[in-house]
Amino acid sequence: MIQFSDKDLTARVIRSFETMPDERLKFLLKETVTAVHDLVRRTNLTIAEWNQAITFLTRTGQTCTPLRQEFILLSDVLGISMLVDAVNQPEREGATETTVLGPFYVGEHRPTPHGADLSNGIEGTPMFVQSRVTNLAGVPLAGAEIDVWHADDNGFYDSQKPDYEQQGPSLRARLVADADGRFSFRTILPCSYPIPTDGPVGDLMAATGRHAMRPAHVHFLLRAEGHLPLITHVFLDGDEYLASDAVFGVKDELVARVELRTEPVLPTGEVISSPWHLLSYHFRMKPGAGAVPGPVMSLSE
Amino acid sequence: MIQFSDKDLTARVIRSFETMPDERLKFLLKETVTAVHDLVRRTNLTIAEWNQAITFLTRTGQTCTPLRQEFILLSDVLGISMLVDAVNQPEREGATETTVLGPFYVGEHRPTPHGADLSNGIEGTPMFVQSRVTNLAGVPLAGAEIDVWHADDNGFYDSQKPDYEQQGPSLRARLVADADGRFSFRTILPCSYPIPTDGPVGDLMAATGRHAMRPAHVHFLLRAEGHLPLITHVFLDGDEYLASDAVFGVKDELVARVELRTEPVLPTGEVISSPWHLLSYHFRMKPGAGAVPGPVMSLSE
Repeated sequence: MIQFSDKDLTARVIRSFETMPDERLKFLLKETVTAVHDLVRRTNLTIAEWNQAITFLTRTGQTCTPLRQEFILLSDVLGISMLVDAVNQPEREGATETTVLGPFYVGEHRPTPHGADLSNGIEGTPMFVQSRVTNLAGVPLAGAEIDVWHADDNGFYDSQKPDYEQQGPSLRARLVADADGRFSFRTILPCSYPIPTDGPVGDLMAATGRHAMRPAHVHFLLRAEGHLPLITHVFLDGDEYLASDAVFGVKDELVARVELRTEPVLPTGEVISSPWHLLSYHFRMKPGAGAVPGPVMSLSE
Repeated sequence: MIQFSDKDLTARVIRSFETMPDERLKFLLKETVTAVHDLVRRTNLTIAEWNQAITFLTRTGQTCTPLRQEFILLSDVLGISMLVDAVNQPEREGATETTVLGPFYVGEHRPTPHGADLSNGIEGTPMFVQSRVTNLAGVPLAGAEIDVWHADDNGFYDSQKPDYEQQGPSLRARLVADADGRFSFRTILPCSYPIPTDGPVGDLMAATGRHAMRPAHVHFLLRAEGHLPLITHVFLDGDEYLASDAVFGVKDELVARVELRTEPVLPTGEVISSPWHLLSYHFRMKPGAGAVPGPVMSLSE
């Protein structure tokens, strides 16, 4: 018979993994159990607090839907997602900085011609994005596939809207770089917006007194043969939340100046009657291979 | 502008809690973020592994129902529940040992007279439980309320069965101690059983190669005025899983010998034609006050 003692409980739990065939998973479990047990001891966690934690985690899981990933959001607001990204990017070698995927990537987007308008009727200040993808030496990566997505003027992604299934995507597309590595599209100026605050992560943010805002940005996911997939944002310079992003995602190099333009023609030749903004950004990808993370997982599987 | 660096990311996240009004929650968040960030760095967690963790936690939340609490089960199989119980029980002073509440407590039970049969028609080897509740000095705690619940002959709790709503409770009742602190009931012999293995926790157990068995036991939750609520099990001596309980819940003192009896009368005077088992246990409660944890939380709230 084993006499129970909380002193050797952690060791007993770790010993229970001893015969696991998967060495890496064994190591991860051992480190996770050690970390959580240490946390319980160090904080003298009360039973009521443990109950609150169980309820919080349960609510977080239950808030997830095929189009909403509250656990990714939790990871984001605690800086975990940026840290995971960082420990997986040890040597940048001049490549464009990376940042979080975020919870609003919904998988591959519909292919869209250069210069196309992604707004799908959504109103806002016109913005034209022109961009180029090269390798580290500046050689164009023709055929690179670029998924882009961003929030609207009110801070919502298409996938957050109740009529998403009917309306189809907006402010979301896939472009393919031309022979010179270039791609462009028309859209509207994104604004800074709060992360979803109507779930447990929102309750957590409220309890911390932190604001829930993210500075205005456009998401990019770039894939090119023989190169590491690049997951990043381009942020709009001047945004008041650049220094206090709710998910800690801002890096200086990813902040781009947006020029206000008043000429009545877009780079496509299209006539435009109102002032518009021009966002230019040059992406540099490094050699390698890597899997692209899936979209927000479907929970029905 | 803040230049991002993974070196100071943890410090930045912790600084974001600086102005929180709730000092205890601030401390818990700070320690939790530190522990998780350390874990990510120490394990060099890959993006694919982070994704697996997100998926696992999401599935765990989605597996919870008003009658099933997969996060408690996860906490149980990693020894976290027993540790939380232990750090909250620093001085036992002769009181009965505690163990995990487990995920099958469904809230207050229907009051039941002494000697009643809890089996509600479920077949099994008859067992009679006679018990006594006293304070640390051996003085009977008349009027103490005792919730009991246990699994059937096949290892299932009533609340796990699809017809639970229609059939009503079985092997589950509330008793009230008499003037001498005594209570008794008739039931069937519980058997060792596997924790639910059809969810993510079952997948985890399979990956570890650990068995999912719990040794046979009866759950007790005792409340008496002026005394600390007592949450515990009584285990049946001789069970082959006493030394390897899937949730690490066994303590020597909670193991009771079960006597095989062949006389054709139960202690109630009831005639019985088959051999039966007698389980006797003496509970000692210590002075104090404490909240009883809620049942498996209703997730519809």
